Amino acid sequence: MSVGTIHGVGLGPGDPDLMSVRAHRLLTGAKHVAFFRKAGRTGQARKIIDGLLREDVVEYPMDYPVTTEIPLTDPRYNQALSAFYEEASAHLRALAEGGEDVVVLSEGDPFFFGSFMHIYTRVRDHVPVQVVPAITGMAAAWTATGEPITWGDDVLTVLMGTLNEAEMRARMQTTDALVVMKIGRNIDKVVGALKAAGKYDDAWLVEYASMPNQTVHKLADVEGRVTPYFSIIIVHGQGRRP
Amino acid sequence: MSVGTIHGVGLGPGDPDLMSVRAHRLLTGAKHVAFFRKAGRTGQARKIIDGLLREDVVEYPMDYPVTTEIPLTDPRYNQALSAFYEEASAHLRALAEGGEDVVVLSEGDPFFFGSFMHIYTRVRDHVPVQVVPAITGMAAAWTATGEPITWGDDVLTVLMGTLNEAEMRARMQTTDALVVMKIGRNIDKVVGALKAAGKYDDAWLVEYASMPNQTVHKLADVEGRVTPYFSIIIVHGQGRRP
Ligand SMILES: C[S@@+](CC[C@H](N)C(=O)[O-])C[C@H]1O[C@@H](n2cnc3c(N)ncnc32)[C@H](O)[C@@H]1O
Ligand SMILES: C[S@@+](CC[C@H](N)C(=O)[O-])C[C@H]1O[C@@H](n2cnc3c(N)ncnc32)[C@H](O)[C@@H]1O
Repeated sequence: MSVGTIHGVGLGPGDPDLMSVRAHRLLTGAKHVAFFRKAGRTGQARKIIDGLLREDVVEYPMDYPVTTEIPLTDPRYNQALSAFYEEASAHLRALAEGGEDVVVLSEGDPFFFGSFMHIYTRVRDHVPVQVVPAITGMAAAWTATGEPITWGDDVLTVLMGTLNEAEMRARMQTTDALVVMKIGRNIDKVVGALKAAGKYDDAWLVEYASMPNQTVHKLADVEGRVTPYFSIIIVHGQGRRP
Repeated sequence: MSVGTIHGVGLGPGDPDLMSVRAHRLLTGAKHVAFFRKAGRTGQARKIIDGLLREDVVEYPMDYPVTTEIPLTDPRYNQALSAFYEEASAHLRALAEGGEDVVVLSEGDPFFFGSFMHIYTRVRDHVPVQVVPAITGMAAAWTATGEPITWGDDVLTVLMGTLNEAEMRARMQTTDALVVMKIGRNIDKVVGALKAAGKYDDAWLVEYASMPNQTVHKLADVEGRVTPYFSIIIVHGQGRRP
């Protein structure tokens, strides 16, 4: 019996039409499909591919442990997540060792802040793994604004909203083009840093880029808005253009 | 007679299998396809889609003016490029005004340092334009290294090899994860900056990511190598991971 392959498949930003031809082929042919989700939710990745899977597909939802009560700095936070990834990885590895190919869904690009990375590092030395790159959420977000993100020699900086405010501000001040991800509950901190860096008035907020409920606003026009997890803030570069 | 649409279609990094489902559909149905190339060459974008086009397709190659003798700082450089984009834009706009849809090819993502942006700004106020985002060259490059690019709160900085060395070094020093594009003739400057920033030993060089002639090396293992235009340098972030 030959060993199976774990495919880490990037689905792109949300619109199934923006999936790669390869991702589409792997998905429609897959017998085993695994995906992350918050317990009790469908999971964004699973939603994207609704209607594409084989009738006899075997689904393996991986429910994130509930960690909202544990502060990020508490060692128990990392322990809970680590145990979760270990268990999921062991299951997927066993499937592959049993000869089955498995597709693991990833929102956007798997190697760009993707949860699949935590499976990847745990199984790569044991079974074959293939990664399919994808369109990132940020590419869909800047496309949605209708303005190119970078020109000429522009420097692009990508930040997470989870960074501390002082560092965020310093990075924002010195970059030409800017992308901030993981907004959600970090929105006030991000807004504070943007204002201090003098970039608030040029910032755009894109929610659910390329999805049916996509919204695009100048950030200053929606001050105080409650932003969802799938939000990205964009400041366009203004580099030279012929 | 209704007006046509100009579609700026990102083809992704090179492997046709990494094109989006939407890009694939637009291309295989297109009557008019325009693309940039160096005079006398096929053009990378045109190569990617070889064999996909309709038999009766009308192709419109846009040959970059030869500017190798003019320094970037000479105003004649900008003038030559500007005249070129004006002419190409006028042609595409006339096609759309005549009721024809046109697909303009873009390597990688159109709004991320893409030549299509120079057409876009010239036609957008006159005819309908649709942009299809795509997988970037850098996503294919970090996937090719077999290591995720960013973890946890990592800051990602994207630089062009055309930046001056002092600024390049300063940016490299302070970032977690790094992508450098437009290597080619800038390789010595980029290597100098990486060494000064203490990141040379961690740098990877990826040529022709996702294309048949892809190569992946630790940069230090290929010192002195002549790097092509389609090269990307990657330094992976080392942020927290459970
Ligand atoms: C854990 S990261 C995953 C990034 C993903 N791997 C990618 O390539 O885009 C999650 C963050 O990505 C951003 N994101 C991803 N897709 C998005 C979309 N379609 N619209 C808005 N934000 C998105 C949000 O900022 C979200 O907090
Ligand atoms: C004018 S920029 C265009 C970037 C493109 N729009 C994208 O999204 O990747 C050209 C640079 O992109 C990089 N590049 C794009 N695709 C690449 C690939 N498949 N392999 C290596 N480098 C690539 C190279 O650094 C090249 O000098």
